[in-house]
Amino acid sequence: MNYPNGLRKNINNTINYGNRGMNLEEDLNITNKYYLDNDIAVIYKKPTPITINHVDYPNRKDAVITNAKFKIPSTTDYNGIYKGKYIDFEAKETANKTSFPLANIHMHQIEHLRKIVKHGGIGFIIVSFSSLNRIFLLDAEKLFEFIDNNNRKSIPLEYFISNAKEMKISLRPRIDYLKYIDWRFL
Amino acid sequence: MNYPNGLRKNINNTINYGNRGMNLEEDLNITNKYYLDNDIAVIYKKPTPITINHVDYPNRKDAVITNAKFKIPSTTDYNGIYKGKYIDFEAKETANKTSFPLANIHMHQIEHLRKIVKHGGIGFIIVSFSSLNRIFLLDAEKLFEFIDNNNRKSIPLEYFISNAKEMKISLRPRIDYLKYIDWRFL
Repeated sequence: MNYPNGLRKNINNTINYGNRGMNLEEDLNITNKYYLDNDIAVIYKKPTPITINHVDYPNRKDAVITNAKFKIPSTTDYNGIYKGKYIDFEAKETANKTSFPLANIHMHQIEHLRKIVKHGGIGFIIVSFSSLNRIFLLDAEKLFEFIDNNNRKSIPLEYFISNAKEMKISLRPRIDYLKYIDWRFL
Repeated sequence: MNYPNGLRKNINNTINYGNRGMNLEEDLNITNKYYLDNDIAVIYKKPTPITINHVDYPNRKDAVITNAKFKIPSTTDYNGIYKGKYIDFEAKETANKTSFPLANIHMHQIEHLRKIVKHGGIGFIIVSFSSLNRIFLLDAEKLFEFIDNNNRKSIPLEYFISNAKEMKISLRPRIDYLKYIDWRFL
């Protein structure tokens, strides 16, 4: 049930409701823009998938969507290219202090990551424990390992501590996650 | 000025207005599903980017977007992975019989393709001359070559005939564009 998140993030993305403080998505967008501007990588967040039910267009240029619904995404939110490699990841925040609830990721997003890795891409998830101010990059392999060997609804913080890379937030780039990709894959 | 296309494609995507006959986007979606189902490649069309201005949510599950606008895309519509390689392309249809108007592609989409190629990805455009029933795959390099050496608002059909790969439409997959990628890059 990601709709509340999806929704909140989406609104943050598109309307300025004043400074609510940065969230993971904003940090990653700024980071990806830094990578792009500095010719380091070309990685974008995909637009939020929606189903459009009605569009008004007074004229061809000013089409307005007047009825649409959020769709469950088929893929992860982020993909792109870095050093010739295909990069694919999902980023999630949790207020939970002890574990990351797997309900935050759709099963078909995990299946998507399995396909990416199978086809030779670099897949991972970035998880922010917002109440703890800790952010981790967990390789897809390690994510699969946990899911395939544990019948649990959430991944304990300890699993991240021992299997993921903890990332520091800096100024530029905000979250230099590609540094951890270098470390792990290249 | 892609809004009419973007709009039409988007509505076709999301509402069934009955059989209007297939268009390029539908053919590519079916092709990409074939590639996915047969474990050949993982390539998706990105959702249409929109700016959300208002969302109603009677309850958390039934959020309805009641006011949104189409955004000009920053990237191409399609990307993914094939044989470990990053794939990125734009697909356009034209009713024009003699040339492909460059107004159909945003300049920053072309700049995006330049970045992709620079970072080691495989970039191209697929252009359907719908009135002629001819579909071409033009490498990004050849696209740049034309744009950089011609001060023209459209690419003549002849340029496609001599520099692009013409693709046949078949049953499964509908448009086997990866075959031409093999031929060209792998």
